[in-house]
Amino acid sequence: MSGNRFGTLFQYASWGESHGPAIGGIVDGVPPGIPLSESDIQSFLDRRKPGQSRHTTQRREPDTVKILSGVFDGQTTGAPISLIIENQDMRSRDYSEIAEKFRPGHADYTYQAKYGLRDYRGGGRASARETAIRVAAGAIARKILSHEIGDRIAIRAGVIRIGAEAADSSNWDDSEIGRNDFFCPDPQAVPRFAAYLDEIRKRGSSVGAVVEIRARGVPVGLGAPVYDRLDADLAKALMSINAVKGVEIGDGFAAAALCGEDNADPIRHTPDESGAPVFDRNHAGGILGGISSGQEIIARAAFKPTASILIPQPTIDLHGNETEIATKGRHDPCVGLRGAPVAEAMVACVLTDHWLRHKAQCLCVPEGSRA
Amino acid sequence: MSGNRFGTLFQYASWGESHGPAIGGIVDGVPPGIPLSESDIQSFLDRRKPGQSRHTTQRREPDTVKILSGVFDGQTTGAPISLIIENQDMRSRDYSEIAEKFRPGHADYTYQAKYGLRDYRGGGRASARETAIRVAAGAIARKILSHEIGDRIAIRAGVIRIGAEAADSSNWDDSEIGRNDFFCPDPQAVPRFAAYLDEIRKRGSSVGAVVEIRARGVPVGLGAPVYDRLDADLAKALMSINAVKGVEIGDGFAAAALCGEDNADPIRHTPDESGAPVFDRNHAGGILGGISSGQEIIARAAFKPTASILIPQPTIDLHGNETEIATKGRHDPCVGLRGAPVAEAMVACVLTDHWLRHKAQCLCVPEGSRA
Amino acid sequence: MSGNRFGTLFQYASWGESHGPAIGGIVDGVPPGIPLSESDIQSFLDRRKPGQSRHTTQRREPDTVKILSGVFDGQTTGAPISLIIENQDMRSRDYSEIAEKFRPGHADYTYQAKYGLRDYRGGGRASARETAIRVAAGAIARKILSHEIGDRIAIRAGVIRIGAEAADSSNWDDSEIGRNDFFCPDPQAVPRFAAYLDEIRKRGSSVGAVVEIRARGVPVGLGAPVYDRLDADLAKALMSINAVKGVEIGDGFAAAALCGEDNADPIRHTPDESGAPVFDRNHAGGILGGISSGQEIIARAAFKPTASILIPQPTIDLHGNETEIATKGRHDPCVGLRGAPVAEAMVACVLTDHWLRHKAQCLCVPEGSRA
Amino acid sequence: MSGNRFGTLFQYASWGESHGPAIGGIVDGVPPGIPLSESDIQSFLDRRKPGQSRHTTQRREPDTVKILSGVFDGQTTGAPISLIIENQDMRSRDYSEIAEKFRPGHADYTYQAKYGLRDYRGGGRASARETAIRVAAGAIARKILSHEIGDRIAIRAGVIRIGAEAADSSNWDDSEIGRNDFFCPDPQAVPRFAAYLDEIRKRGSSVGAVVEIRARGVPVGLGAPVYDRLDADLAKALMSINAVKGVEIGDGFAAAALCGEDNADPIRHTPDESGAPVFDRNHAGGILGGISSGQEIIARAAFKPTASILIPQPTIDLHGNETEIATKGRHDPCVGLRGAPVAEAMVACVLTDHWLRHKAQCLCVPEGSRA
Repeated sequence: MSGNRFGTLFQYASWGESHGPAIGGIVDGVPPGIPLSESDIQSFLDRRKPGQSRHTTQRREPDTVKILSGVFDGQTTGAPISLIIENQDMRSRDYSEIAEKFRPGHADYTYQAKYGLRDYRGGGRASARETAIRVAAGAIARKILSHEIGDRIAIRAGVIRIGAEAADSSNWDDSEIGRNDFFCPDPQAVPRFAAYLDEIRKRGSSVGAVVEIRARGVPVGLGAPVYDRLDADLAKALMSINAVKGVEIGDGFAAAALCGEDNADPIRHTPDESGAPVFDRNHAGGILGGISSGQEIIARAAFKPTASILIPQPTIDLHGNETEIATKGRHDPCVGLRGAPVAEAMVACVLTDHWLRHKAQCLCVPEGSRA
Repeated sequence: MSGNRFGTLFQYASWGESHGPAIGGIVDGVPPGIPLSESDIQSFLDRRKPGQSRHTTQRREPDTVKILSGVFDGQTTGAPISLIIENQDMRSRDYSEIAEKFRPGHADYTYQAKYGLRDYRGGGRASARETAIRVAAGAIARKILSHEIGDRIAIRAGVIRIGAEAADSSNWDDSEIGRNDFFCPDPQAVPRFAAYLDEIRKRGSSVGAVVEIRARGVPVGLGAPVYDRLDADLAKALMSINAVKGVEIGDGFAAAALCGEDNADPIRHTPDESGAPVFDRNHAGGILGGISSGQEIIARAAFKPTASILIPQPTIDLHGNETEIATKGRHDPCVGLRGAPVAEAMVACVLTDHWLRHKAQCLCVPEGSRA
Repeated sequence: MSGNRFGTLFQYASWGESHGPAIGGIVDGVPPGIPLSESDIQSFLDRRKPGQSRHTTQRREPDTVKILSGVFDGQTTGAPISLIIENQDMRSRDYSEIAEKFRPGHADYTYQAKYGLRDYRGGGRASARETAIRVAAGAIARKILSHEIGDRIAIRAGVIRIGAEAADSSNWDDSEIGRNDFFCPDPQAVPRFAAYLDEIRKRGSSVGAVVEIRARGVPVGLGAPVYDRLDADLAKALMSINAVKGVEIGDGFAAAALCGEDNADPIRHTPDESGAPVFDRNHAGGILGGISSGQEIIARAAFKPTASILIPQPTIDLHGNETEIATKGRHDPCVGLRGAPVAEAMVACVLTDHWLRHKAQCLCVPEGSRA
Repeated sequence: MSGNRFGTLFQYASWGESHGPAIGGIVDGVPPGIPLSESDIQSFLDRRKPGQSRHTTQRREPDTVKILSGVFDGQTTGAPISLIIENQDMRSRDYSEIAEKFRPGHADYTYQAKYGLRDYRGGGRASARETAIRVAAGAIARKILSHEIGDRIAIRAGVIRIGAEAADSSNWDDSEIGRNDFFCPDPQAVPRFAAYLDEIRKRGSSVGAVVEIRARGVPVGLGAPVYDRLDADLAKALMSINAVKGVEIGDGFAAAALCGEDNADPIRHTPDESGAPVFDRNHAGGILGGISSGQEIIARAAFKPTASILIPQPTIDLHGNETEIATKGRHDPCVGLRGAPVAEAMVACVLTDHWLRHKAQCLCVPEGSRA
């Protein structure tokens, strides 16, 4: 109820501040008997980890995850899985300026006002460092989906815009995403992204980004109308990521400008063995009435520019005096880049949660059928 | 857990199908001692109710709400408030076509696939008729906010786009919203909206819409980081409304194209008695780190075009045969219009829920201080 | 969060005051495709309903339940099931005395102190009338268990003590329970119960009771350690019934006086087709480590004597003045009698909830396996 | 939803197995600005810790707690508090016997049946070691109550029965509890307890116990009718402790044998400054209609005898073969002793949770009133 938990049946909670001894989380509701090791999680953390190119923040942390519970003989036991990542880049720094001043665009002022005090070191609880736990939980979610549904599920997020530069979604190539510094699915956009972001970084500024997430192989029937629609839960999951200001499903805002006949996705018969229908188009982004239709699920999240920039900005201090503040040293010119693996993880968590909910209510299980 | 509840401390649940005997809901967590009558709720329902102009659906229902519990001598008692609205427009109709065919863009196919059966009459549980309960809950939420925080809180939603026609947000006028058939806050856009929608309706088509919600006078400190941020909960609330495909807070997707210095909202000192700072701009839409900053909260929701149109669309039937379907008789050319009072209600519910959560965790109450 | 909901995946909420227009509830999380009619519920309500013999309260209400949603063509749809029971015995009475005075042993004083006002008519929300909704929810829970697990599940509650008179549990006979006015499973105790309760009623007093609940055919594996153990959830469910002051599982308090070797239930092999082990004894009451073992589940609830008696009791009024109060007219000499069908219903709800939870986490379902 | 969390607004989750690297938990919903250090928690852990006398289990662990998050400059920040206790007594042992056989009275069989595998080392997740986290959470709960309500709240648990030996509750002395090895509040019972338990231990057996919890200074108004009554939540909390088989509030099962006039607690006026009424007696145990009345809250929990004894018991192995099993080496002759600090902690957690819930719904807070 204090906002540190995500999900209902597949659920995780995170804890920790940017500059405390560690961050961590508990992943709960994991079915028993699923093979799981630290390296299953680590590989996803490595994709998200900062400091891997000149385009991202330079906090250099190994972000090594340890599993402290819930796994026995290499398999999940059904007990909560406790994860911990020690903080290592906590070199003693001078925090006196951010202790005293509210950084515009950050949570400094609102935390101070809400709680009456705040852990100002590195953003404390509001730091994007928390998203490492999201990525770890997402890695476990994927293991559940693979184990129970099969490997046809594929969830991939790509950066399709940074600031003024857009990629072409029709060039989407899953395998390209891991090959460049931008999680960009369009190989042709990569050189433009690189040049543009270099320029932004050099002048001490930052830009926003748009991340698109595509999930293929999702079973039909996931989502719980009316309030816990799959799209509503995806919207919450994505909007909960630091710096996200907008979320779309399928055509999103573009749908508002369409006529009914242009927006409809006609349904066709497919005489294959699955018996499942196909759709001529996918304006809906794979979700109808809040329930997955079996089409590809398409979502997008808009990230605002990093608030910490080298350019001084007017603000006030704790005592109400007007002053200004600027980030010193290296900064992260596009926080949205790291948003791709995080958004991917959140989608995996939402789908897993709704899969378990679907099992509970809609799938009838003859007793004694433990797999 | 089945998706029919909304909220945590201020919580409501809805029930009912479009063509059952009634729809209704339970609103729970309401503080005691708040004056409440049916007319307090009815006035909001009357704003939403269909069939009020040629621009909306022609289901003519009085939508009269009755309070069945939780109010005694004109005051809330702290017990759950049960609301019921009888369905009256249930004239016997021929449902054989929608019983057999899946309407593209509707929940017909996904409900059938998820549950193995569906109440096909008028959309059953997936009908937009359910949103009447959202509006009723929103009316009670407003009473709580007024009682506990005061009348400075104002929450208004306006339609700022229908299909190809956009209003000018800078002309926003709260009082204009109630004066036209479109919940449009820009008086200059109204004639354009009217002409455009007439044309759409006459050719049997439909269009989408964008609704903007503005909440003024919201106290600083509402919102529970990390996963239950105020913006994340607003995103879920708005995305849960039928036909919504996108949600934005503040600049939303436009923020992704901005540089850091253009997106920042500098903080200034105000030497008034409140001691609260002011912000030069409001790109953030009144929320920082998931917590309200005291600025105006600005959110937008994109509605897709009504899926039921007079133009035939290809589909399949229950047996997998390809066929087509078209809506007969009158149709609703822009379901997004009714979205305005519904979106307004959802925002009121989210703010009320977070107000109660803030009281529980952050406001220290000397014992014995019942007001 | 306001205490009007029960359960997690199988969940219901109740609303209504004793002397309002109606009471009702929403039952949610019900799997689709289960045959359900009002008469399935009514038969359980008829067992609980007051005024059936001289031994129970004389409020004469037909307690006729109506289903307002969630059932279509005689089957559940997966949507919330709204139930309503109109109040009919609301003859205008003089409530001035209970409006002004706090009845000892009732919730009058605590409701007034907590909420600052109360609906004093007939106990308002605190009335035992609310338990009708529990019984209705329990009837639906049973339908789910039968549909998904089969008819071998049998849940029966019997009154094994009223005041000074105890039945002999070893004479337990399920079919006897429905044949006497006391829900007593021991035919030899019935005449003693009758004579004793007549005497109590005639002198205007009341007595407590102990209800024992036995559930047979419960699958092994229900219950979620550590905090939502099956026994913990049963304890909460039973203690939430009006007038209950104690709960036991298996040997209960008697176990505290035993030595380890006397309390243990040795495990034996059974070479039948089920492969399930048997236990020599059942001190544990069918639950080990919070999880059902497949043995008979045995629980007991202790009901205090009805607080409303004809004998005057000292109390104070709203203004703090000392006075006394006595119930007038007919009274209910043993509120625990009606506790049997209510306790039975609560156990059915808890088992159903944990069955759905078990399906979600522990039963692996190959995709596409809708029954 | 997997049973590893407790509470709603004041909430904690625990993780860890008996013989994993550590156990821990997250305590969430803690108001900001409360002074908190590790020693505040450690002092309570030290009371519970095993191996302190010959009467308890001989696992010698320092049980040193570390706070990993949520505290800054000696004060809570409102962020989740992560606690960790490293396991040290994990000497490599021969687990082959308990890996292969189900210990009667333990969760071995039911975990295996539910999850299909189990961490058999030391009981894994089902170990009473988990209760250390309950005690830690209870220590934080007490800090909240003191900070927000004041030091008049006192919560104490005492062992009033072990096996055949009963203490006299009317000799209750809070300060005695900490002075003997039995958490016994009656100094006269202590020598009897010691002699009796020595005898039990020497013959390799075990006994049950009854723990009574008394909470004084609890504000009137805590508890949320109908399903989350304070007594229902206490029942769940106490029944969730390992080995508990029964729970009573006030007179408990004895109330079932009473007449109404003997069970009633007459209400009197007190002309002191508080204006609160007094009650002549306290059969109700301080709770009426599920809401605290301001009287002393009295609850009891019955613990079964330790299941692990030196006396061999018949059982089966994983393959269904009949065999027998006995504990080797030292054993814990009365697991209920350690139940006292655990029960005390659970009561503190329940009261704190309901205090926060009461603040949210019932206490009206003028805006801006951060303490």
